[in-house]
Amino acid sequence: MKTVRIGLIGTGFMGKAHAIAFQSAPAIFPLSARIECELLAEVNSDLAARKAQELGFRRATDDWQALVTDPNVDVVDICSPNFLHKEMALAAIAAGKHVYCEKPLAINSADALEMTEAAEKAGVKTLVGFNYAKNPAAQLAKEIIAAGEIGDVVHFRGTHNEDYLADPQTPFNWRLKREFSGSGTLGDMGSHIINMAQYLVGDITQVNGDLQTVIKERPLPDQPGKTGVVENEDQAHCMVRFDNGAIGTLESSRIAWGRKMGLTFEVTGTRGSIVFDQERLSELKLYTATDSAGREGFRTLLIGPDHPDYGHFCVGPGHGIGYNDQKAVEVRDLIEGLVADKPLWPDFRAAMEVNRVIDALEQSHAEGRWISL
Amino acid sequence: MKTVRIGLIGTGFMGKAHAIAFQSAPAIFPLSARIECELLAEVNSDLAARKAQELGFRRATDDWQALVTDPNVDVVDICSPNFLHKEMALAAIAAGKHVYCEKPLAINSADALEMTEAAEKAGVKTLVGFNYAKNPAAQLAKEIIAAGEIGDVVHFRGTHNEDYLADPQTPFNWRLKREFSGSGTLGDMGSHIINMAQYLVGDITQVNGDLQTVIKERPLPDQPGKTGVVENEDQAHCMVRFDNGAIGTLESSRIAWGRKMGLTFEVTGTRGSIVFDQERLSELKLYTATDSAGREGFRTLLIGPDHPDYGHFCVGPGHGIGYNDQKAVEVRDLIEGLVADKPLWPDFRAAMEVNRVIDALEQSHAEGRWISL
Amino acid sequence: MKTVRIGLIGTGFMGKAHAIAFQSAPAIFPLSARIECELLAEVNSDLAARKAQELGFRRATDDWQALVTDPNVDVVDICSPNFLHKEMALAAIAAGKHVYCEKPLAINSADALEMTEAAEKAGVKTLVGFNYAKNPAAQLAKEIIAAGEIGDVVHFRGTHNEDYLADPQTPFNWRLKREFSGSGTLGDMGSHIINMAQYLVGDITQVNGDLQTVIKERPLPDQPGKTGVVENEDQAHCMVRFDNGAIGTLESSRIAWGRKMGLTFEVTGTRGSIVFDQERLSELKLYTATDSAGREGFRTLLIGPDHPDYGHFCVGPGHGIGYNDQKAVEVRDLIEGLVADKPLWPDFRAAMEVNRVIDALEQSHAEGRWISL
Amino acid sequence: MKTVRIGLIGTGFMGKAHAIAFQSAPAIFPLSARIECELLAEVNSDLAARKAQELGFRRATDDWQALVTDPNVDVVDICSPNFLHKEMALAAIAAGKHVYCEKPLAINSADALEMTEAAEKAGVKTLVGFNYAKNPAAQLAKEIIAAGEIGDVVHFRGTHNEDYLADPQTPFNWRLKREFSGSGTLGDMGSHIINMAQYLVGDITQVNGDLQTVIKERPLPDQPGKTGVVENEDQAHCMVRFDNGAIGTLESSRIAWGRKMGLTFEVTGTRGSIVFDQERLSELKLYTATDSAGREGFRTLLIGPDHPDYGHFCVGPGHGIGYNDQKAVEVRDLIEGLVADKPLWPDFRAAMEVNRVIDALEQSHAEGRWISL
Repeated sequence: MKTVRIGLIGTGFMGKAHAIAFQSAPAIFPLSARIECELLAEVNSDLAARKAQELGFRRATDDWQALVTDPNVDVVDICSPNFLHKEMALAAIAAGKHVYCEKPLAINSADALEMTEAAEKAGVKTLVGFNYAKNPAAQLAKEIIAAGEIGDVVHFRGTHNEDYLADPQTPFNWRLKREFSGSGTLGDMGSHIINMAQYLVGDITQVNGDLQTVIKERPLPDQPGKTGVVENEDQAHCMVRFDNGAIGTLESSRIAWGRKMGLTFEVTGTRGSIVFDQERLSELKLYTATDSAGREGFRTLLIGPDHPDYGHFCVGPGHGIGYNDQKAVEVRDLIEGLVADKPLWPDFRAAMEVNRVIDALEQSHAEGRWISL
Repeated sequence: MKTVRIGLIGTGFMGKAHAIAFQSAPAIFPLSARIECELLAEVNSDLAARKAQELGFRRATDDWQALVTDPNVDVVDICSPNFLHKEMALAAIAAGKHVYCEKPLAINSADALEMTEAAEKAGVKTLVGFNYAKNPAAQLAKEIIAAGEIGDVVHFRGTHNEDYLADPQTPFNWRLKREFSGSGTLGDMGSHIINMAQYLVGDITQVNGDLQTVIKERPLPDQPGKTGVVENEDQAHCMVRFDNGAIGTLESSRIAWGRKMGLTFEVTGTRGSIVFDQERLSELKLYTATDSAGREGFRTLLIGPDHPDYGHFCVGPGHGIGYNDQKAVEVRDLIEGLVADKPLWPDFRAAMEVNRVIDALEQSHAEGRWISL
Repeated sequence: MKTVRIGLIGTGFMGKAHAIAFQSAPAIFPLSARIECELLAEVNSDLAARKAQELGFRRATDDWQALVTDPNVDVVDICSPNFLHKEMALAAIAAGKHVYCEKPLAINSADALEMTEAAEKAGVKTLVGFNYAKNPAAQLAKEIIAAGEIGDVVHFRGTHNEDYLADPQTPFNWRLKREFSGSGTLGDMGSHIINMAQYLVGDITQVNGDLQTVIKERPLPDQPGKTGVVENEDQAHCMVRFDNGAIGTLESSRIAWGRKMGLTFEVTGTRGSIVFDQERLSELKLYTATDSAGREGFRTLLIGPDHPDYGHFCVGPGHGIGYNDQKAVEVRDLIEGLVADKPLWPDFRAAMEVNRVIDALEQSHAEGRWISL
Repeated sequence: MKTVRIGLIGTGFMGKAHAIAFQSAPAIFPLSARIECELLAEVNSDLAARKAQELGFRRATDDWQALVTDPNVDVVDICSPNFLHKEMALAAIAAGKHVYCEKPLAINSADALEMTEAAEKAGVKTLVGFNYAKNPAAQLAKEIIAAGEIGDVVHFRGTHNEDYLADPQTPFNWRLKREFSGSGTLGDMGSHIINMAQYLVGDITQVNGDLQTVIKERPLPDQPGKTGVVENEDQAHCMVRFDNGAIGTLESSRIAWGRKMGLTFEVTGTRGSIVFDQERLSELKLYTATDSAGREGFRTLLIGPDHPDYGHFCVGPGHGIGYNDQKAVEVRDLIEGLVADKPLWPDFRAAMEVNRVIDALEQSHAEGRWISL
């Protein structure tokens, strides 16, 4: 049996989620390769050593550049802040490593294109962590649409709203500076719903959007009484047109009080509809025009073994998967794609398409008109 | 005690709803005047006579022009198809009658303006049937916003989607021709969510929209094998900017499978949020930032006697009001406004503002840019 | 066209609800008779006169005994406190009047039997106000069960919980004394869910129950610092066995914090299930075993014109009916039954069966064993 | 750092869930010991070897008796069918091993008592897999109750219903024979809701129940046309009385169409209520009497870092945990209890209390009366 050796950079929210998935995925799925958590990089040696111990990595380093060239690393897994993705990914690609990178791929589409072209030229495989598309419920939505069960898609409404910055007293952080984060809520959460729209409906060809920074300054941590200027948007929305003729709206906010994991979508087709809310991630609502008179209604499908991937987690329907389980599916896709030498999805090119929509939205906002992609 | 004598034109869906409200409102509310259902007009004498008997009207006529000038009619209530509103309203105004008219006020904003100016010049009172704003839950939303409980409004997402034309085999009808209906789903249902946005958030100053006719032809009734060309939109959405700085999206569809009364809104403020779904018309979800840590969450408020108007229907909370009850509130507003000689809301001018948003959306679609109101 | 003349006794919560229904039902339904709100009785002349004016009754009296013998009254409608039902009904029956009575029919089953036998002997028609069984959603549940769509019923779980006495500081009232109310929550709300169980599943043959007075004293109004002793139960539940072999549980509470109109039921059959919650009175959830693999789930049926009675209220599905609309259905049943000389349901005999279940529950609690009916 | 070495018996549904948790828990929680998946037993060598490889166990055996005495095993983890628990646990205890056993502990309370006394006498630690009590949402319910936020508990309604045997054509299996399973739905699922009631409310002192086998025969697999007789109940419910004065009902069914993971509870207190549904395992609904007038309602708490244990899985609230995550909490409890030499919960004694309630329910059904525990 083959072995895939992971080099992980960054152990915050996402780094830990990746680590959990590396540990659990082999017991959940019948993987075609063994995963070895080989090397972990953090900003200093102590933290790296402690995190390696906690997260089950064999070795630790404070030098990500050493990691990306380490001969015992097959896949470089980038879980660092957005603005570091490019440099790290290009270095990993240059070293011939496969790259598993968190989203958004880059802080703008030009960078994303450069990364994509480098990877494609080098022939390495890439995977970007749009994990919500790995949720069995989202896969089921895709399956239902692909099978024509709701006919042709005519409308898509998607949101990814949270409230983690709704309180104006939440301190300033790197995500609020364009230099480090690029866009605001659009890259952070909007990228997920853009990816989901492309996954479920297809290519977006035109965008017309609006955005706003509502809380313009925030307290600087460690500098009592001083504030920092917020440089990117708190909320944004746009109209989109898809290549297949469907139209829709996408929305993202980081100040939407009450929404904790507000990725939602409603897909309307010519013969039915699908409704989903990630806060109830193991349910999908389905309406089909074929129900008999007086017995029509949205069905609440509780995800179970008849649906994609769920049966590997649990043989009982409706028992529910969690956020980290989505990452286990993602890791399974990574491993199986590498072993079988098949394309991974979403790869850098697919992720670049997300960055392009974000850039188009910003441009359309600035120019007050539709932007074609 | 004063008496208000009603002359009703049209007894379809809305005419019947008005009639039920005229009968029930006096038992529900302590009204300041007696309502007399004086005269009813329909397209022929037999139907008029039968409907007058069914709906409790004293007299019947097949001549709406006689109705609007009848000396025993104080209020002309117009429940006819959209394209007839203007002629009827202008005639009623000319006869010095108050006018209670169904929405949309007119098939375009020019007509709506003409009607508005005529009414204002004549000094008659007008009321337009945007009944969803009369729902106690909607009034509660307004009250919560006005009291500052969710802070300043920063975002509004509203929809009014139904599926009554989702089946492509549903036959052609007058609503599909511009001559008779003006816009499609926008006037029919979109007008409600536009009115609701204005009610809850305030004036809309800019619009940027998209629309689409998905089912381009439909079977002509009585002409087997032949189809009629659909002249207005099946689905539409737009971005809006409000006078107070909030932004938002509005959406309407008549082909949204599964949505039967899909008027929904989410209002996000700087200190909380409100979520509403008219399919559960006696509930309002409220999130306030003031909840203690670990005890935050959307509260499902079941409308009860502590909320606007509900206590007149029922002293027990959560027992629920229905669609027709909204019309009883509207009739109460009509009667009390007339008796007290106070402004009614929404009057023709307010309804004209809805027509203006629809026109702006159509123009923005045609020109691909923001339109200022 | 015939006329049915109503004499209403009592204008509290229920009296007003009846009055609203008398006014609205003729406009909603194509009734076979005209309803005349002839005479209204209240405890004093002033109140009676004021209420007659408010609720649209022609005449008023402070003498209910005069009302029940009034020659211009066809139906005596009893909306007084429970303990008065018997005397009033017997007097009305003696005067040859049809009787429309609020629930519970009596404060014990012996009284209910006496009332039933008197009515049957006199040949007058009777109807008892178990209005939740008139809800189109409940009728739909009945229709689905009768059609065998969920197979044979094997289990029923029903509740009717509210919280109107959950606060221990809510003052003492007549409902808390056995002399005036009989049982506590069982008669007040439990009677509704017992009636619903009998309506949907069939005769209850055995009962085994438990009950409890949680708040044993309450402040006496107008006597500061003094309390009255609560004489009946705050919460109760029982196991039941139905004649057709199904088993189930019933529950009622007047101290169930958060429940405002907590009449709920879940009916499990051999081929499907139905779930209902009166707080969402225009929805019924249906699960049928015939759905295909991976597409099974509870459907949320929004009540519409394809379902019983709803179309008379509104031609658009999902627009929702309210609490008072149930009473309009009840009034329709009353009028149509009288005109066609057909049995009414639930009549005194059916309501007596509810009282018998309550008595059996109390006995089973006292004796700690199953009681057969 | 200490090491805890696991010997796992059985790799079906539960065995796999345990294995996933052994892999993931160390990355999720800061554990005080390393977990070594040392030895796995299955019914034959091939299966054992394959499963050991899949589930990450070092060694495999087809001899569970060798496993329980293996010197490199610290904890024997029993995931075999119910009827084998006793023999295996007694052997493990005899060998001085700690025992982690799936529920129900035994097929009757006499066996459970024997196992409990053996463990206590031997001084080994025990833990039983009532994982739903490990769900952060259930822990939060416990925390809220313990803090007095809903006052004194007065009522509890609990269910654990599923539909995995609702189809009469589902073949016969070992769970349907008393010899192998003891009770039917009561042991399989009822045990969970009994444990939950005891966890949240306290000791159950009296039981009065009813049960029923609805589908009396089922097709024998591999014997076409032949059926086996079902020896235990398909559905059961009971009334309970708690030591603290609260009363309640418990219900379990394996034929409840539509319920996939129907563990639900409603806890009513003197100052509030809690409602939970395991099909939405990351939500808890809370009503507190302290809300201001007109702003009362059930809050939907989305489990987040402010709640027990969740923050170890994810720093973002509302992202959701899954079924297997509950087992990770359970494994954390196991490891931490062993290392700190603290009591585990629920241990064999606590699990025996569940068996005693089941036995009492069966007895009360047979005798038609309350049974005291």
